Parts: sequence; C-alpha cells; structure tokens
Amino acid sequence: MLDNLDHFKCLKRGTAGAINIDPLQRGGILTPEAREAILEWADGYSVCDYCTGSLEEIQTPPIKEFVREALPQFLEVDEVRISHGAREGIFAAMHALCQGGETVIADGNAHYTTLLAAELAGLKVELVPASEGPGYRVDPGGYQEAISRARGRGERVAMAVLTYPDGNYGNLVDPKAVSEICTDAGLPLAVNGAYSVGRMPVSAKSLGADVIVGSGHKSMASSGPIGIIGATEELATRIFRRSKLVPKKELEMLGCTLRGAGILTMMASFPAVVERTRRWDEEVEKARWFAGEMERLGMDLQGDQPHGHDLMFFKSEILYEISKTAKKGRYFLYRELKKRNIFGIKPGLTRQFKLSSYQLSREELETVLSAFEEIVSNHPKA
Amino acid sequence: MLDNLDHFKCLKRGTAGAINIDPLQRGGILTPEAREAILEWADGYSVCDYCTGSLEEIQTPPIKEFVREALPQFLEVDEVRISHGAREGIFAAMHALCQGGETVIADGNAHYTTLLAAELAGLKVELVPASEGPGYRVDPGGYQEAISRARGRGERVAMAVLTYPDGNYGNLVDPKAVSEICTDAGLPLAVNGAYSVGRMPVSAKSLGADVIVGSGHKSMASSGPIGIIGATEELATRIFRRSKLVPKKELEMLGCTLRGAGILTMMASFPAVVERTRRWDEEVEKARWFAGEMERLGMDLQGDQPHGHDLMFFKSEILYEISKTAKKGRYFLYRELKKRNIFGIKPGLTRQFKLSSYQLSREELETVLSAFEEIVSNHPKA
Repeated sequence: MLDNLDHFKCLKRGTAGAINIDPLQRGGILTPEAREAILEWADGYSVCDYCTGSLEEIQTPPIKEFVREALPQFLEVDEVRISHGAREGIFAAMHALCQGGETVIADGNAHYTTLLAAELAGLKVELVPASEGPGYRVDPGGYQEAISRARGRGERVAMAVLTYPDGNYGNLVDPKAVSEICTDAGLPLAVNGAYSVGRMPVSAKSLGADVIVGSGHKSMASSGPIGIIGATEELATRIFRRSKLVPKKELEMLGCTLRGAGILTMMASFPAVVERTRRWDEEVEKARWFAGEMERLGMDLQGDQPHGHDLMFFKSEILYEISKTAKKGRYFLYRELKKRNIFGIKPGLTRQFKLSSYQLSREELETVLSAFEEIVSNHPKA
Repeated sequence: MLDNLDHFKCLKRGTAGAINIDPLQRGGILTPEAREAILEWADGYSVCDYCTGSLEEIQTPPIKEFVREALPQFLEVDEVRISHGAREGIFAAMHALCQGGETVIADGNAHYTTLLAAELAGLKVELVPASEGPGYRVDPGGYQEAISRARGRGERVAMAVLTYPDGNYGNLVDPKAVSEICTDAGLPLAVNGAYSVGRMPVSAKSLGADVIVGSGHKSMASSGPIGIIGATEELATRIFRRSKLVPKKELEMLGCTLRGAGILTMMASFPAVVERTRRWDEEVEKARWFAGEMERLGMDLQGDQPHGHDLMFFKSEILYEISKTAKKGRYFLYRELKKRNIFGIKPGLTRQFKLSSYQLSREELETVLSAFEEIVSNHPKA
C-alpha cells in the first residue's frame, strides 16, 4: 500500500504546441512573465515572507499596491480583494449580503456555480429565463418580472446576479439596463465577469455593478484557482467586514485567501492583461470573421448576432450526421482535430460545441477552419 | 493611470540560497518533481483538459486515483476531497455538520481560522483553555468540561475541533482521549492537521478523527493554496452532499476547488511526502537536539517537554535585553540573522519567536545555532 506512487511524479499535460480552442482555457494561458513568477514563488506561503497580518497589506512583494490601487483602478470599483475564484466571490457576496431564506435573481444563462453559491448560502433562486435558440437572449426587462414573481410569492429578494457574458453562448446583456431595474428595486447587482474581466474593458461603475467578480485562471492569465471580488464602498464594508472573534482579520475570506504563487502570476501578467483589454475590438472582429467562416462550412452560431465575444457556441447538423457512421462515432470530431493538433472541444461532442478564438492569430484560426473544412469534406456523409 | 505597471512583472523573492526557519514555510517547499509539475500545469484550468464534470473524477491526469485511493490510504480515512486549504476544510465541515447558533468546542491553542470558520458559519465557540506557560498544555479532559459548560448554558453543541499540533507551540494533545470524550458526548471530532498531515504519520482512524484536514502549502510540499479534507463515510455523505439545484455537483466545495497547478504539485510531491512521514522520528530527534542547544544559549523552549514536533516556540530574555540598546532596536535579531542568510523569524521579534527545524540538515541547524551564539556573545548587553 502506498508503495508504487512514482507515476504521480512526472505527469505531462501532453498538449504542448497544440492550438487550444477551449473557451475555459484561452484567457488563462500564462504570460512569459507569469511563468517566471510561478517558479520564483512556487513554494507554500512564499508570499508571506513579510506578512503583517493580512494578504492585502503585504508590501513585499507589492500585493498591497496591486490590490488596493491597481485593481480598483482597473475595474473602476472602490474596493477589491483576492478570492479563490469567481464562484467563491459570488458566494462571499451572497453570504455577506443576504439572509438565509431570501431570494436572489439570476440570469437563465448563469454559470452553474451561481446556483450552487445561492444554495450553499441557504438562498432561493429566481431565474430570468433566456429566450429560445438560436439567440438564447436574456432580456433586461426579465429582471423586473423575476423580482415581481418572487415578491408576489411573498419572498424577500436580496440581490441580483448578471453573468456578463455567460459562459455558454458568450452573450452580453446590457448591464446598465439591469442595474437600473435593480437600483429601482433596491437590490445590489453582482456582475459575474469570469469571461470579461481581463479580456475586455470592464468598469464596474459604467456597468452599474455594485459587486463584480472575475476569474484569474479563466481570463487574467493567472495560475488558478484565483479570482477577484470588487465592491462599492458601502457593500465592501459588509462583504469585507472584520471578525468579531479575531478583529484584525476579515471574516468572509477566512483571513487570507491566496497564500501562494497564484497572486504573483496575476500580478506578473497584469501589465499584459491591461494592454490586451485595450485591443478587445480586434478580438471581437476576429471572432466575427471566424464565426462567419464557420457558418460558411455549415455550422450555426448561437447567441448574439452580431457576436460580441470570443466565446462561441455552434450547432452543427453536418458533424452530427457524420458522427452517426464515422469510425469512433461521436468521438470522431475530437480525434480528427487532435490528429491536426487542435485541442479544446470536449470529446464526444459533434452536434453542438463551444470554442474560443481569444488571443489566437488569424493564421492559427485559419488552421482551425481548414481542419473543419477538411473534416467535413473528407467524409462521405457530407 | 495604469500606465506604469512594469514593476509587477519580474518580482523576485530574494531569499534564494538562504536557510529558511519559518515554521509556516518549512513543510511547503516544493520537491524538484513539484517544481517541474508547476511549470507543466501552470496555465489556468490546465487540469480540466479531460474533465468529465468533477475535479475528483478526472483520470488524465490521474486526480481520481490520487484523491479516491492514494489519499484515503495515506490518511486512513474513508473519503477525501481537495480544498483550498485547512481553514476552508474546517469551514466546510462546520458549515455542513452544524446549524447556525450551535456551539463548537475547540482547543485554546487553535489557529485563528478555526474561530473565523465558526463565526462565518454562524456558530459559537467554547474554548478548552490551555495551561499557563511554559507548557501551554491542553488537557483532553478540558473537552468534557467545555462541553458541560456550553450544555449547562443550554447551548446545542455540534462538533469539536482539535488542532494537532497547534501552530504556536507545536504541542500534541492526545487525540484518542479527546476523541473518546467526543464520542461519548455524541460529537464528531475534526482534527486540524495543518502541521501534521504530510510531516508526520497521521491516521484518522488511529487518532479517532471523524474529519481531518491538512494543508498542502504548509506541510505537503505543494504550491498553495491547497488542502485536503477527509471524513468517515457517514460524515462524508453530509459534507460532500450533492446540490439539489445542480445534482451532479458537490455543494460544499461549489463544484470543483483546485482547478489549477496546485493539485499537480501535491501529486508530484506525494511519493516524497509519504516517504518523509516515515522518517518523522529523525525529525523529532533533531528538533530535540536543536532545542537543547538553544536552551544552552539561554533561550527557553515553550510547550511540550520533551518536544514532539519541529515547530518550536522560544522565549528569550537575553535577546530582548540586547534589543533595548541594539542599533535597529527590536529589529536587530532579524537583521543579524539576515546578514548570515537565515530567514524566517518575524522582523521585530526578540523576546519570543517561533522557528522550525523541519527538513533542515544538522549542518544547516549548526549554522543557525552558531548565528544565535555569535549574536548573543558579540553583544555587550549579553
């Protein structure tokens, strides 16, 4: 027992040199600076050499400046803390701002972790349904209806969440419109920016977000798990309140969160991340061009038209038809792409799948398009 | 604004080649295998290439085998999950096993995060006081008294926590004795093994622990934040229960926790970690020898005598006296050690300080002892 463990030692990922089109992973690829940082700060508690009691107060390395100055400026929000990820930030906000038994409103395209966070905090969830495909749109007005429905049942509504964009279709709902409805209803709005913060320009102020969460490993070129949570001054007082039992420590984050290398990768990537958000228009243009080419091959882009994000969801009856008779069945697409050194579409999917063009060059995307073209045209069923 | 960010890019830790005696950091230094793993798996969501819906079910890399087989064997416990750290594991257990308003019993030497976790879960805490110095001992019988006190006030007692060893003195309370009291009282016992799991042999079964948490970055040569939580089958059903809203996902951990490189560093270090726990006797013997030498220099070891752990707390009136007239005052010790390339005693401390001899060679410890000897003898006040 426990005698043959050597196979845990030198595990390789095996995707070196591949074109990765996984939306989950495109925004989390480390910059060269972050790769240096992760080795330098790899050891446990490395960031705590000069700790004075709180992660966000550490000056060597300059975590304090990063969290207290750089991130609030970047997000145009009063206060920021480092979390274990976007989901943990959403939970912290719900747990701090709502009472058990109350209701939160969320968009029908919300990430599953929004539901989990609410359930873990003892809250009910009222969803704003998305429209039928191919749009899968969430209408901001639906927030008003959802609030009315819940209140009509006598529930106390405590908070609203908007996923911006959602992680299925890359749809962007007008946050300002949602925010106005929430303000009128007296509800704080938390924006889940796991797929926007670090990819596109995001200003909590302009969005009308009272709380904003982002994901380092998803969109800020950081080694995860790591995320950020920002809040207005008023809500920050509640979310980042101090413990009564240990008054020096902030309660909701159990003192300190990112006691390791992840925060240094986020810092090391930050200059590049700021810069890339300024070139977001190019990413959107590239995504639209890519989607157009995919449609020419017979794939149907779902969600917003024109599309406003690098995350794209396609339906494809052609690939589905091929899969019915292909060797390896529904795994044929994964295998055909793998043969061409393209990764990131989940094994087994053909009829519908997600991908991302984020930070890929036109040449790399041409390679992906050629692969799809070949796969479709090589196969008798097509 | 946000124009001058280059100083975040290439931050160095600046402790390369130093002898590090920080108890927080000694057990979290990566193995060479873990350093390879962290670079290989550094990118965000790298472990999710072949995700089938749950971190602990991933077979490539073999996280499933590690979490479902290797770790339960290592800890002699029924079920294990990966957490963000020991404190997050303690919170998960409290949140899952207790109802708001109930009381948890904890040892008076508990880490501050035990109090935070209880407060965050809406629980009261009844402490088992430690004795006066120099022993700072927690008597197992104190658990019975604490339970009686809380019950006497009409409180519902839901759980007990034992910190094994505590992080201040490195004291080891007889867990079996505490466990028997808890069993008789109908309470689950959670053992906080942040300073034991990965350093010394730990069997939840032998300890009588119903729940056990460990810290990867503190004691398992892992890049944090990362920890483990193990539980008996009965309690695992409650702590790792699935969500009602998203039935495929485990609720308490919000689906998946360690979606990044940390888990691969824990796996890569695991063979070495298993091996080093088998040589724990040597570590204890070394710690006792080191403490004896420090006492010869006039420092007073606090806590268990003879000492049973590498974490040692010393009081030193000599260094305190020196600090009163020394250049740099109470920072003189930090600076004198730094000059000799020894790190890990908090800047500003002289009268009392913690250090660890864990995984340091006799030669390195001789260097540390010589440094203290020089510092004491070079100074007129001594």
